[in-house]
Amino acid sequence: MAPIGIVSECFSDFGNFVLQIVCVNSACTYTKILCLSKVLDFHHPHQLKDGLEGFSLDLPEHAETLEQILVDCRDTLKYGVSTGHPRFFNQLSSGLDVIGVAGEWLTSTANTNMFTYEVSPVFILMEEVLLKKMQSIVGWSEDEGDGIFCPGGTISNLYSILVARYRVCPEVKTKGMGALPPLALFTSEHSHYSVKKSAAVLGLGSESVMVVTCDERGKMIPAELESSILAAKSKGLLPFYVNATAGTTVYGAFDPLAAIADICHTHRLWMHVDAAWGGGLLMSDRHRRKLQGIERACSVTWNPHKMMCVPLQCSVILVKKPGLLQECNKLGAEYLFQTDKPYDVNYDTGDKSIQCGRHVDVFKLWLMWKAKGSDGFGSQVNKCLENAEYLYDQLKRNSDFQLVFKHKPEHSNVCFWYIPPSLRALQPGPDRDRRLHEVAPQIKGRMMEKGSVLIGYQPFGDKVNFFRCVFSNPATQPEDIDFLLNEIITLGADL
Amino acid sequence: MAPIGIVSECFSDFGNFVLQIVCVNSACTYTKILCLSKVLDFHHPHQLKDGLEGFSLDLPEHAETLEQILVDCRDTLKYGVSTGHPRFFNQLSSGLDVIGVAGEWLTSTANTNMFTYEVSPVFILMEEVLLKKMQSIVGWSEDEGDGIFCPGGTISNLYSILVARYRVCPEVKTKGMGALPPLALFTSEHSHYSVKKSAAVLGLGSESVMVVTCDERGKMIPAELESSILAAKSKGLLPFYVNATAGTTVYGAFDPLAAIADICHTHRLWMHVDAAWGGGLLMSDRHRRKLQGIERACSVTWNPHKMMCVPLQCSVILVKKPGLLQECNKLGAEYLFQTDKPYDVNYDTGDKSIQCGRHVDVFKLWLMWKAKGSDGFGSQVNKCLENAEYLYDQLKRNSDFQLVFKHKPEHSNVCFWYIPPSLRALQPGPDRDRRLHEVAPQIKGRMMEKGSVLIGYQPFGDKVNFFRCVFSNPATQPEDIDFLLNEIITLGADL
Ligand SMILES: Cc1ncc(COP(=O)(O)O)c(C=O)c1O
Ligand SMILES: Cc1ncc(COP(=O)(O)O)c(C=O)c1O
Repeated sequence: MAPIGIVSECFSDFGNFVLQIVCVNSACTYTKILCLSKVLDFHHPHQLKDGLEGFSLDLPEHAETLEQILVDCRDTLKYGVSTGHPRFFNQLSSGLDVIGVAGEWLTSTANTNMFTYEVSPVFILMEEVLLKKMQSIVGWSEDEGDGIFCPGGTISNLYSILVARYRVCPEVKTKGMGALPPLALFTSEHSHYSVKKSAAVLGLGSESVMVVTCDERGKMIPAELESSILAAKSKGLLPFYVNATAGTTVYGAFDPLAAIADICHTHRLWMHVDAAWGGGLLMSDRHRRKLQGIERACSVTWNPHKMMCVPLQCSVILVKKPGLLQECNKLGAEYLFQTDKPYDVNYDTGDKSIQCGRHVDVFKLWLMWKAKGSDGFGSQVNKCLENAEYLYDQLKRNSDFQLVFKHKPEHSNVCFWYIPPSLRALQPGPDRDRRLHEVAPQIKGRMMEKGSVLIGYQPFGDKVNFFRCVFSNPATQPEDIDFLLNEIITLGADL
Repeated sequence: MAPIGIVSECFSDFGNFVLQIVCVNSACTYTKILCLSKVLDFHHPHQLKDGLEGFSLDLPEHAETLEQILVDCRDTLKYGVSTGHPRFFNQLSSGLDVIGVAGEWLTSTANTNMFTYEVSPVFILMEEVLLKKMQSIVGWSEDEGDGIFCPGGTISNLYSILVARYRVCPEVKTKGMGALPPLALFTSEHSHYSVKKSAAVLGLGSESVMVVTCDERGKMIPAELESSILAAKSKGLLPFYVNATAGTTVYGAFDPLAAIADICHTHRLWMHVDAAWGGGLLMSDRHRRKLQGIERACSVTWNPHKMMCVPLQCSVILVKKPGLLQECNKLGAEYLFQTDKPYDVNYDTGDKSIQCGRHVDVFKLWLMWKAKGSDGFGSQVNKCLENAEYLYDQLKRNSDFQLVFKHKPEHSNVCFWYIPPSLRALQPGPDRDRRLHEVAPQIKGRMMEKGSVLIGYQPFGDKVNFFRCVFSNPATQPEDIDFLLNEIITLGADL
């Protein structure tokens, strides 16, 4: 072990180095300099594995020098992807909030665990404060609402099905699925795959998920939901849960929550709203009406690590009925949840969780909220949606591009094709489709090699590969959007 | 939004402040000064909620000043618990490794997601390297082994049951539990509650978990396992999975892995080893024999965030048979796992996971491994186990204390009662038990008020409340252990 002095000194060096990266890369310090830097410096897996200029991934038998450790750190960042770059449009989580990073740093310095008040007094209370606040923003009353922070929206969605199943039949906790008739749950064809994944994990099976048709904008059609429920009943299944999405992953569509709530009410089904991506819009006076009806949900998934630009991981599952999460998951391990502690053990909230140890994900959000205020989050969201409208306007007036659907974006997703010169004269049909399908992957490949900008693509249903641009980094400016379109045109000109 | 310059400056202030905390608190800088500082500064929930000297948890409508943010940060640390303090004996995760913290800082600066190589090229490869290394340390051959990092040992254990169930009947993924006869799984009475919790979550029901009797040291009795399996079969259940614990939570016991492996072989059951706590001992030449037989496991849980002192969260599930995790969990979402990418998409490992977004937990472990080498981890583990032996020796020779069991500790757990003066003359029996049961909670309460040291307690089976001391912080010295015992004697003298 190196002497203390050297370690501290190197750590300070390291700290200052990282500080510098954060300051340069952060949302607050958007500058021209940054835009000249690359979004990524692409290398194939075999290249990185073979080692690049003294950067070896191998784990040594004996300690390396601290100087080497610093080099390793620099290289790790160098060969990574700058998700905080204003020209990174690849994922729903982007940006780098300087206060959020500070929050994460303090969290790792505190290095504690969310299971009990005993070891996390401050963080447990912050979780309570944040949950209450988010519940009131959803529109629940003072005496309603419970929830927990958990490692991502998929786990949040899993919680919602778990709790809904428990509500139908509390015996399932001890007796398993055998205590229940075959169940059916409902979600739209545009919803996130975590619903199916959760159904598989929970032992319901992915086929218990009934996929409801959407309109051309990706919104669930209420009449289709209704008939899907009836069809399931007539097959002898027990419908119990509907997932409505507020902000779908690809199109950014908002399901009609009020109409879905009516149907859930009629059939007495648990209504969950997956607002992993769309929840951030609740912070904006201008956009929150798109989630009207969310207050009628039994549970809500909301990922501050997406639209609110909180560093990963930060996701919450909110449950309207208090006590249910605890009942559903409680096991009362005596080594952790002693009842004879010297404080109010209702604050030992860890038994609500399906985890034991749980990372502190609340602090960075709490700190950002202090630093921005609710209205600061609102402006940030507005900014991202303005960027989406700007892109939409540019696409509409440029015949090199074609929108996947004509409507103005509701969220910050904008889906479009680039039509390269060689395809412009072709008639719509299978031949053009086949060729168009290859355009986005090819441009994306070139883009990764060049490293100047990053955007995602995918096919969807009968639609061949198209680009999906998403905005969640408030540092992005209209000129970055112009840059994106020009870059696509440049990289695709010969296709 | 505050001007950029001010934010950067404050962030640097903040960074330097946190740097200082890390350096003071970290394992490398154990000093007398630190021992004079408190482990915690206890306040009741209502006190913290009412606000202490300008520290309010409330979330504002408008931004607070950056100066206030810094105050908030200081107060958050002030009213928290110093889990890195060498006199924090309360939890299996303790200590504060300076390189580990640096790793976590870089991770949050990189702020990316483990789903694809596209956005995490370096971290995905680091995960592969770490998994291979850990598999080889477990004792699996080159062509065996798969795994994934996930948010905690509970989720790792859940994965093991999920994959074992899939192995019995792949149809369960689509058809649910209805595709299977009633299942039975086996775990010892000393095992972690996550096995039962996972069974409940997965839809098997907690009653499908058969609890196997242990000997007085907390080790599963193989003959009891055998008869438990036969009993389950005779009840028409389908046994499919055995969880053996390597390092139990309270006693630190190691189940006899080789004998359990024989039984699993005979009955063709999936053998899982929960080495969440004990896995670290594999790093030590002196202690790894305690896990002999682990190489025969089908899956292993190992939490570097416990015995290896890696900052939270860092847990891994290892699965011997390659491909199974992927088959079991894969859904192939097209927006994320495109097959027409410009690199080898086998590196897009995210579909192995039950999560979608996944926090980067690998980097801090990778960096610590570089900085310590395998042998550095080994010495660290040896040091913690020497501390446990030292405590054991002290307790044996001091009649104020009574060991919960006589044997030398195998792991770093030491369980004991403090017998206050008023109980010393009492005969063993219900009256003494009733009074002894109240001793540990009372001392713990006083300890929290005083804040000088922190240790956990619990009852177990027919044993009334006893202290459990655990060592995972290599900064702890024998004098801290002397301090602990003296403190217990002082705080309990009048009981
Ligand atoms: C033996 C054992 N297994 C599993 C776990 C769960 O680990 P985690 O807290 O990371 O979920 C623990 C936690 O203490 C444990 O002691
Ligand atoms: C609508 C929706 N729900 C849930 C999720 C899953 O969130 P996470 O990646 O945090 O698991 C996503 C992720 O993109 C999403 O878009």
